[in-house]
Amino acid sequence: MILKVVTSNPGKVTEYREALSSFSIDIEHTRIPYDEIQTSRLEDVVENGMEHLKASGLTDFIIDDSGMFVGALKGFPGVYSAYVQRTIGNAGILRLMENEENREANFQCCIGCNLKGKDIVVLGKCDGMILKKETGTEGFGYDPIFSHDGKRSFAELPIVEKNRVSHRGDAVRLLMKEIEKVV
Amino acid sequence: MILKVVTSNPGKVTEYREALSSFSIDIEHTRIPYDEIQTSRLEDVVENGMEHLKASGLTDFIIDDSGMFVGALKGFPGVYSAYVQRTIGNAGILRLMENEENREANFQCCIGCNLKGKDIVVLGKCDGMILKKETGTEGFGYDPIFSHDGKRSFAELPIVEKNRVSHRGDAVRLLMKEIEKVV
Repeated sequence: MILKVVTSNPGKVTEYREALSSFSIDIEHTRIPYDEIQTSRLEDVVENGMEHLKASGLTDFIIDDSGMFVGALKGFPGVYSAYVQRTIGNAGILRLMENEENREANFQCCIGCNLKGKDIVVLGKCDGMILKKETGTEGFGYDPIFSHDGKRSFAELPIVEKNRVSHRGDAVRLLMKEIEKVV
Repeated sequence: MILKVVTSNPGKVTEYREALSSFSIDIEHTRIPYDEIQTSRLEDVVENGMEHLKASGLTDFIIDDSGMFVGALKGFPGVYSAYVQRTIGNAGILRLMENEENREANFQCCIGCNLKGKDIVVLGKCDGMILKKETGTEGFGYDPIFSHDGKRSFAELPIVEKNRVSHRGDAVRLLMKEIEKVV
């Protein structure tokens, strides 16, 4: 069977193809724009997106959304992480966190999957902290200022190690467990 | 005729009732939740909200959305102003603007009105600047850090004067001009 990854990012398609290679599922890239709503929970964005896509007649597809939630900033930038990265960026987050002792943060990734008429929604998480300065050159977005072990930033981790500990890795593993029950 | 103001904020209803008192229109408060989409333009939020409400069968209604757009922060917090106010607040904006010489900002208010089968969308604006510290006790949200004249903050203006210069005042005047053509 075919599972369509609805995204504008071809990198995600490759990632899902690799992750789900043990199932007899063909992964296909589909670009269908859908609205993301304003809310404080990634799950709401994903569930609403799924309803929207199903209403337009789409079946057997995957969408996802990710964000970084900083404790001392009441969850900011959260669901709006992409927008905040484009505007105030890592420099802005570091400035907001100056002199802040509580550095606690987490990355979250929510995946929604419609498969054989069933909806699966999983939330992957990675707990960590905001570093005091940008470090590393790998990855993208908030990776240079986020650390899961308090030592190395996500932008310093080899991709294999990052996938093992990251919110996306966690979400993909949760998704695989659920898919196993359906296929 | 009756025009329904769709909002969770009763203050807005009073404001529209006063503004539109010269027309023979009864203003009614309606609470219908509708999704606000993630985008960089208030107009997109409002137009999408109107489509959603019309699809649910509602006619003859008003919705609006406002935001503060800071030049040096690439328009941040913009469409997400309410969320940003709830999380990092005015202290966060001031911190992001420390040592920033370009203080330029504007407030925008977009009103969408469905009236007699016609859609009206207007965008009111108020140019100004971000102050270096919070001043004044009137108003709400970003009012203590925004000034239209470079001297007094919005939180220091008497309400009548604020309505004359504010983005909401501007938007309401634009709306009245458009309503005149329809009724």
